[in-house]
Amino acid sequence: MIFEIIVRDKKTRARLGKLKTFHGEINTPVFMPVGTQGAVKTLSPEEVEKVGAEIILSNTYHLFLRPGHEIVRKGGGLHKFMGWEKPILTDSGGYQVFSLARLRRIDEDGIYFNSHIDGTRYFYTPELVMEIQKSLGSDIIMPLDICLGYGASYWETKEALEITLRWLKRSIDYKNNSNMDHQLLFGIVQGGFYKELRKEAVERMLNIDLPGLALGGISVGEPKDKMYEIIDYTVSLLPEEKPRYLMGVGAPEDLVVGVSMGIDMFDCVLPTRLARHGVFYTSKGRKNIKNAQYKEDFSPLEEDCDCYTCRKFTKAYIRHLFLQHETFSYRLLTIHNLRFLFRLMENIRKSIREGRLEEFKKEFLTEYLRDDRENRLEKEELWSKLLI
Amino acid sequence: MIFEIIVRDKKTRARLGKLKTFHGEINTPVFMPVGTQGAVKTLSPEEVEKVGAEIILSNTYHLFLRPGHEIVRKGGGLHKFMGWEKPILTDSGGYQVFSLARLRRIDEDGIYFNSHIDGTRYFYTPELVMEIQKSLGSDIIMPLDICLGYGASYWETKEALEITLRWLKRSIDYKNNSNMDHQLLFGIVQGGFYKELRKEAVERMLNIDLPGLALGGISVGEPKDKMYEIIDYTVSLLPEEKPRYLMGVGAPEDLVVGVSMGIDMFDCVLPTRLARHGVFYTSKGRKNIKNAQYKEDFSPLEEDCDCYTCRKFTKAYIRHLFLQHETFSYRLLTIHNLRFLFRLMENIRKSIREGRLEEFKKEFLTEYLRDDRENRLEKEELWSKLLI
Repeated sequence: MIFEIIVRDKKTRARLGKLKTFHGEINTPVFMPVGTQGAVKTLSPEEVEKVGAEIILSNTYHLFLRPGHEIVRKGGGLHKFMGWEKPILTDSGGYQVFSLARLRRIDEDGIYFNSHIDGTRYFYTPELVMEIQKSLGSDIIMPLDICLGYGASYWETKEALEITLRWLKRSIDYKNNSNMDHQLLFGIVQGGFYKELRKEAVERMLNIDLPGLALGGISVGEPKDKMYEIIDYTVSLLPEEKPRYLMGVGAPEDLVVGVSMGIDMFDCVLPTRLARHGVFYTSKGRKNIKNAQYKEDFSPLEEDCDCYTCRKFTKAYIRHLFLQHETFSYRLLTIHNLRFLFRLMENIRKSIREGRLEEFKKEFLTEYLRDDRENRLEKEELWSKLLI
Repeated sequence: MIFEIIVRDKKTRARLGKLKTFHGEINTPVFMPVGTQGAVKTLSPEEVEKVGAEIILSNTYHLFLRPGHEIVRKGGGLHKFMGWEKPILTDSGGYQVFSLARLRRIDEDGIYFNSHIDGTRYFYTPELVMEIQKSLGSDIIMPLDICLGYGASYWETKEALEITLRWLKRSIDYKNNSNMDHQLLFGIVQGGFYKELRKEAVERMLNIDLPGLALGGISVGEPKDKMYEIIDYTVSLLPEEKPRYLMGVGAPEDLVVGVSMGIDMFDCVLPTRLARHGVFYTSKGRKNIKNAQYKEDFSPLEEDCDCYTCRKFTKAYIRHLFLQHETFSYRLLTIHNLRFLFRLMENIRKSIREGRLEEFKKEFLTEYLRDDRENRLEKEELWSKLLI
């Protein structure tokens, strides 16, 4: 059995599980840091492991463009190329083609697009995306899908879903004939923000033999209440026994809420990207190291944090380095933000084990929200709904 | 005794020594990596120690401007602020005022200048420079001096030397009355490229009680043969028993040549700065990771190097990260370049101990020069002079 559920929470849909992959076992619910170009930005593989990562995500689209999957293959596959021995999940690039590439044209065969780097024209097919991920050798792979923005019409969404489902079949066919047995191909549930389409997607995927199911087309510009609503609805349709991966979502509040809705896997660039903008997570919400109040603050980013950054450096020092554009400060903030999320995931898993996730969720969200004046009202309204 | 000479080379002026400072002992000849803003760019303190650094240099001018020495003092001094427990040398900022600041005006009291960051007007005096370095708490400190470019006239150079000598006395007076006994104040020998002025500088400093002497005003735009000539001449005048520090010089060839001329200490931004431009050192000269020949090169930067980068990553991977502007690649190249220099220093010290520095120098320079087509002819001429 690839996925094993160890504990089911009684009050929510949360589950504690173990997912077996070729490069090792993952404890779920799990957060996956993003290493877009074959490196989690600013960190060494050892540092990624040390903050608590059990699996990372890397981007098929980016590695296809640079350095090219052939080079990664010749280098012994992505694990060896980047010096990371634990599991890797690669996405399909569908989202990147949608968000980064220019002059897209989609037809039944695949997607034509111009590279966001140098404008070169490429043709992306479900088969090519499988071939790329075979070269990369990632443990969990994703099929090419069509990802639409928030606001796409019903018919546009339905057509995209139909193509996505046909592409899934082609991806499976390619995989079955390509000696890729050690790689786990997940299915991606699309359907936008139309519940009937999400339902149709799930129903038509139920009889396909897939080791896991992902929720795609989420966090594409919609308000957070719409996001939570469609996640909650879609997860309610999914089979119990398969791992559920919510693609591209992973703010601290999303992790807590998502797990309680039954999500097992998350990935998000937020902790690493925010770090490079000076933002760091604390249990009382996001803060920015550029803030003048930290000029002579000789305490760590967060008092009880066990990360390298907090054990060794003060806000005043990190602020100084950040303002002087010293890249070491990006690393220090990245380490802290990732460690914050992994400690959060550890607490979430512990809470599920102890049957008190609902209490933990309330405590965490109340505390995390408290000082966040930026969008306090909007969030309070949302949280009050979620906490009921 | 602060400085102890352990072995004197018989064929050259090289010496093997130990320099005692408040934060520990340094094995000379020593190379000091530069941590301008209170961090060796891209590296953690642990990484700096691991590549072999026994002492680092930090810049008084930069720390005075940002974050300000008062903040460093409140943070417990530079060692604590930046998390580095081994010795630190801080320069005086004289060179930075000369090379970075704008609208300089020098008078008997000090130097007026505009910050290179925001144009703020400052007034730098010998006393202020001592006060800053007291706040920083560095182990070896330097007095404010006047640093001129190559081509300065005799009279300009003589006047600068006179002021520098008077400022040295004021620096000593300040230090003696300021509870700074644990900090070692070196004298800076100026005099430009005029041998009689260098001679005068040394003679007038001989009767001053200083724990070490530095050669300043070198590597300021002169050709390399002029540089070596003035170093060689000046060192020949210096007392045997004091450590000699060649400021701002430290290309691999300079280290080997400088040691054989009797230099004990070097600092240079080259290994760290070059790394951020993709340049890496090898025993066969400098190479650039951007070069297309490394696209599918799955070997380390240098085959027999013991650094983290070479033990773990290939040129193809580092090249990919570098071309994608991933800051981790700057770190990987910085680690290698510093380790290259520290291995070179280890070999130099070993050669002195074994009485074969002259042979080592010939071997190293011949090999290091071989593939360097860029300025091969110019260098060959120079080396042929040096090797005779």
